[in-house]
Amino acid sequence: MTGRTASRGSYAKTAARRQEILEAAFAVFAERGYENGSLRDIADKVGISQGGILFHFGSKIDLLEAVLDLRDARSRELFTTRIADQEPGLPHLRALVDLVRDNVNEPGMIQLYTLLAAEGTAADHPAHAYFSGRYAWLVEQSHLSLLALRDQGLLRAGVEPGHAARSLVALLDGLQLQWLYRPTEIDMVGDLRTSIQQLISVPL
Amino acid sequence: MTGRTASRGSYAKTAARRQEILEAAFAVFAERGYENGSLRDIADKVGISQGGILFHFGSKIDLLEAVLDLRDARSRELFTTRIADQEPGLPHLRALVDLVRDNVNEPGMIQLYTLLAAEGTAADHPAHAYFSGRYAWLVEQSHLSLLALRDQGLLRAGVEPGHAARSLVALLDGLQLQWLYRPTEIDMVGDLRTSIQQLISVPL
Repeated sequence: MTGRTASRGSYAKTAARRQEILEAAFAVFAERGYENGSLRDIADKVGISQGGILFHFGSKIDLLEAVLDLRDARSRELFTTRIADQEPGLPHLRALVDLVRDNVNEPGMIQLYTLLAAEGTAADHPAHAYFSGRYAWLVEQSHLSLLALRDQGLLRAGVEPGHAARSLVALLDGLQLQWLYRPTEIDMVGDLRTSIQQLISVPL
Repeated sequence: MTGRTASRGSYAKTAARRQEILEAAFAVFAERGYENGSLRDIADKVGISQGGILFHFGSKIDLLEAVLDLRDARSRELFTTRIADQEPGLPHLRALVDLVRDNVNEPGMIQLYTLLAAEGTAADHPAHAYFSGRYAWLVEQSHLSLLALRDQGLLRAGVEPGHAARSLVALLDGLQLQWLYRPTEIDMVGDLRTSIQQLISVPL
């Protein structure tokens, strides 16, 4: 990267400019999606040329990946930090509720993920592999947690860990969609808590 | 409409052409979304000019509405036909499972709804009011059904009809999304049946 060989001042400027571009790209993709959000829109928001964006990020696809990485790194960090040094199972599910509680304050992020996840269902979309892997990871994490709870004797009778894991992830996506349409009527955190409580035989 | 005053032959031709355009629009919107799917793409698919499309449908927004009306009319018809002359509650939930069973054979429709529902979260999207109303309607229908089941003493202990109604609709959306990414791993019908069975104290 150019900034690495430049002076300290210009390195800081480059980093700041990259950050500005990422935030503008985030806003544009969240509002219009990846396919319809243009480099021009992003460039206009930052007040630079499209060439300026390509200097920092190479291509529109690279920029999308940087936006996703940034958000995902933060979300994974939050997630792992919160369940670190705790037993598996219940703490994981509590961390899920905490994450959703944070997300309520970031409607732009929910909008971005909802739109990109839908666009990404097309096999040739640049975010297809990302979301495909993300769903596999999310379901697997929840599955492991529910298996641990079963081993601890904390699952309610009739709860099947595989079904419950897929359903939990589906519930998260579906509630986010309803919440984007009817933010005052949908209590994502409350509904998720209730659903998780119905899976386990101890207080969440 | 021009066709109404034309001869019988040209009326039939107009109707056939409208149908062709609707099917092309359905395919293009399902693959690329409304914002990114262009009139040119649709015109190319039918082999007519963009002006030809506007002659039949007035505007891109009118065309979108016609596509949604067509699908929604069919889905509502299926839905109401199936629960007609049956007691409320259980038959409604069975009809929901049947609908999803049919939808599995129409991945294009699931793709279209998933993409448009996500795009439509933007308040200025032409499908915003449609999906906002659709979610209110779907949740309300499920709520009424679950209230009827409660009155019949068929709900399991701890099931709250409002929460269960929002969750059922969310589950449908979320499972469809996971299914679009991993069609061989996700059994939408089976997962939905299991979830509904967990709400009620009699076999579904």
